[in-house]
Formats: sequence, C-alpha cells, structure tokens
Amino acid sequence: MTMTAKLGRSAQVAAVDAWRSQGIATLQRHPDELAMEEPLEIRVAGEPLAVTMRTPGHDHELVAGFLLAEGVIQSRADLGAIRHCARLGGEGAHNTIDALPAPGVVLEVEATRRGTLTTSACGMCGRRLIDDLIERLRPTAAAARFSRSFIAGLSSELRKQQPSFERTGGLHAAGIAFADVGLRVVREDVGRHNAVDKVIGRLVLDGLLPSAGGVLMVSGRTSFEIVQKALGAGLSAVVGVSAPSSLAASTAARFGLLLCGFARGEAFNVYAGAERLLE
Amino acid sequence: MTMTAKLGRSAQVAAVDAWRSQGIATLQRHPDELAMEEPLEIRVAGEPLAVTMRTPGHDHELVAGFLLAEGVIQSRADLGAIRHCARLGGEGAHNTIDALPAPGVVLEVEATRRGTLTTSACGMCGRRLIDDLIERLRPTAAAARFSRSFIAGLSSELRKQQPSFERTGGLHAAGIAFADVGLRVVREDVGRHNAVDKVIGRLVLDGLLPSAGGVLMVSGRTSFEIVQKALGAGLSAVVGVSAPSSLAASTAARFGLLLCGFARGEAFNVYAGAERLLE
Repeated sequence: MTMTAKLGRSAQVAAVDAWRSQGIATLQRHPDELAMEEPLEIRVAGEPLAVTMRTPGHDHELVAGFLLAEGVIQSRADLGAIRHCARLGGEGAHNTIDALPAPGVVLEVEATRRGTLTTSACGMCGRRLIDDLIERLRPTAAAARFSRSFIAGLSSELRKQQPSFERTGGLHAAGIAFADVGLRVVREDVGRHNAVDKVIGRLVLDGLLPSAGGVLMVSGRTSFEIVQKALGAGLSAVVGVSAPSSLAASTAARFGLLLCGFARGEAFNVYAGAERLLE
Repeated sequence: MTMTAKLGRSAQVAAVDAWRSQGIATLQRHPDELAMEEPLEIRVAGEPLAVTMRTPGHDHELVAGFLLAEGVIQSRADLGAIRHCARLGGEGAHNTIDALPAPGVVLEVEATRRGTLTTSACGMCGRRLIDDLIERLRPTAAAARFSRSFIAGLSSELRKQQPSFERTGGLHAAGIAFADVGLRVVREDVGRHNAVDKVIGRLVLDGLLPSAGGVLMVSGRTSFEIVQKALGAGLSAVVGVSAPSSLAASTAARFGLLLCGFARGEAFNVYAGAERLLE
C-alpha cells in the first residue's frame, strides 16, 4: 500500500492501492483514495486536554468548536490565539494544537478532563444521569421559523459540497445553514462529531454565537450529542440525512429545537419542533 | 411525541409520532420507531470510570469489551461479577453498571480516566502521538487464512441479523465470524464503538480471547479505533460495509490484519493483509 497525502478542499485523502474482489472470480489491483485520519492533541495554555482522531484541516475551527461544546469557552471573547505546535517542526507538528485564553481569562479544563462523570453516589443512577446531561442545556430562541422548501433543499445542498465523500465514501459532513444565505459553511471529517465541531467552531471564530435562525445539517445519524452541540451553539434546528436516536428526539422536543431526519430528495421526517415549520 | 420502550432481539426501539413532509405539498403524521439511546455509567469496583451513550441491552458485554479495549482487563480471568446498580431500583437503575475485579486482582483505571493523553513535552508531538497509539498494539497471529467466498458472504449475513436497523435505520451493527461457524454473534447499537465492544465483550465473557481466526464485521466505516479493538482481541480480520480511514489501513497493514471495505453483495475491497486471502 502506498500513501500520498493530498489536500482536498475541506479534507484530506490518501491514495492507496487496493485489491478488488468481484465475487470470487476476480481479484484485481486498483487505485483508491481513503479519508485521512490522524490524532490531534488539543492543549489549553500548553496543558494536554484531549486527543481526537480527526481528518487534518480546519483544526482551528475544530478546537474552537470542541472547547465550546465542552463548556471550556462561552464565546470567541474567551479565546486568544490558537496555534499548531510547530516548535520543533517535523512531520507531526500539525497534530498538536494549543489554544490560549484571551488576556485576563482563565479557562477551566478540569470538567472536560473528568469527562461527563458524575460524582453522585450509586443510589442516584440512571435517570439522574440523563437529568445531569440535560440540565446543562439551554432552550433555543423561540422566534426562528423555517419554510418546508428551505428544509427540503438542504440535503442536496450538502451533498453538492462533499467533494471528498464522493472520492472516499469515508467522510461525514456537517453544515450550517441560514434561511437567507443557505449553507454558509460545510466541513468533512472521519469523525461526525469533529465535522460538527468544525462548522460550529467556524461560527465561534466569526463571533456569530448564539446563532438563532441557524440550522445544523449532518450527513448521518443524529445522536444526543449532536443535539447537545446544536443547543450549545444556540442553533434552532438540526436536519439529518439519517435517523435520530430516541434521546436526540426527546431532548430536541424538550428544548424547542426543530429536529428533522431522513432528509433525502425533497422529503423529510419531523421528530420535534414541528411548530417551527412554516407552510 | 409519545414514547414507549420495547425490547428488540438485540436492541431497543422507541415508538414515536413523526411528521412526514413529502416535498412541500403534504405534511402528515405517521408512527415511527427510533433507536434507543441512553447513557450508561461504567464503574469499576464502585468508582465511576466512564459514561457512554448506548442502546440499552447486552450491557454486560459492553462493559467487558470496553474494559478490554481500554486495557483495564486482559481476559475473563481478571473480571469478577458485573452488575447493574439496582440498589434503589427505579426507572434508571439499568443505566449504571459496576464491574468487580476477580478475587486478588486489582484493576488499574487511571490510564482510562486520563484518556489517551500523553504527558510528553510540546516538542514530541504529532508523529510521536501516532507512535504512542500504535506501540500498544500487538501483531495478530500469523496462521489464519480466509476464503474469498467466506468474506464475500459476510455482509449479507450481517444484514439478515439486523432487525432493529430495518425498523429504525438508526443502529450500527457489529458481528464476529469464524470460517467454521459463520457469524457467531451480532449486536446493534446507536454507537458503532459500542456495537464492537459488545461483540468482543461476548468473546471475553465466553473466555474465547485471543480469537485468532476471528473476523470483526462492521456495518459502517472502519476507523483506527475499530482496528485497534480488533487487534486487542487478537482477531485476524476486519470487514466493513463502508470505507476504512487512512490510519485504519496503514495500521492493519503494519500488524498483519486483513482489512476489507465496501463489502456489499459479493464484492469487496482489500486494503491490507491480502496475503490472508485464499483463492
């Protein structure tokens, strides 16, 4: 297998030689392209915080979105410079990145380090755990409404802006859309959470949060964490190409988020927030 | 939205009322089913270790597979009882689970708590990070070989055993197959890592590790972490329905794992370990 890194528009692919078996009759070598996956160590003021497996590219956005989702920053104002660890240069310098706080700001990272672990005694389990996750969320702004034709058009819009998916079949995509400008930003990544962090990170870096009236579009399934990230960015809707989970749907309903799934062609399902749909 | 939990064969679904928009012309209420997603807090000897969002069911397997993947246990022998936290009963008691060590065994959990964070100075970044991840892996046993017809048959075998996917479209599946018995175990989950942990956890609980000659079959894409879990269980092959990532392919090649992708119908691609394929 030979590998050559190439830079795509919004993600990287690697060239490989693969073997193709068509039934059991033939086995032939052919060139192929794979989605790039490499670890990124995220540091805050020099201290290691997390390692995520991601597709290189748009790392600043990824870090900004990740720090927002983890509650380490509340907005662009908390954040100083973000820089790759290129002190010694070399092949892997792009795989460590350091986020500095804005002057006078202290960024708390301990909660992220501990993950979502509760410290509750064993008696308070289960339902309390869901409550813990949910009570950190805020309802989305009430006003935003969307036309059905706008929602119906998003899946084909997203697909048009997924060049690396067409080549590798291995990348998730996420996008942020507004009714007046359509899809504002689209990012691809091997990790679907990373793709979401990148597009929300773009909003963070552009000072556009909270983004009431914004729609998060995802190429795959919608889990609780996707809904959690959308609410954290103050978005008003999540539209997925595939199915939502039960907890994604119930959480969206609770916080007034429009949640659509199976958005393909002109059709889509609405699992929560149908009151946000105009004729 | 009304929700009713139902127990499927290998996963749970929730009944919901959704709205269907077919183009912009019609909007009609219809019944739908969603994949269940709930948090599971995993404890070791009473101490909280991690929270994972998972589809309830086969939680013992999930815990066993997770602890193996994290290096907390090496085999069944390290593990005592695994039990849900039902001390107080109630709705959420099934969402906290405690794994006890076997008598005389001490389970180290600190490395898992810290995640994959390195403590290296900033200079040793990037390439070193990949090396750190890779040096924990062991090569798979050399002997196992597979016929192309066996590999070619796995994707339709897996699909036949995904009842909840058919109903919800929202569940990943993983399976373990052996040439002599075919697919031995299949599990579905909203999280693809969970589905893999569950099937490998089944092998752990059955005392079947390392499983040279075993094939991990996954319904989606193959990332580095999937390859990492397969190597950790001593399996000889990973077959995915969708694309592998660059790092999944290079790691499989380095450790002698057969890695196939786009396994659909009778066709598949081979990205690493083609020497394991018989005619």
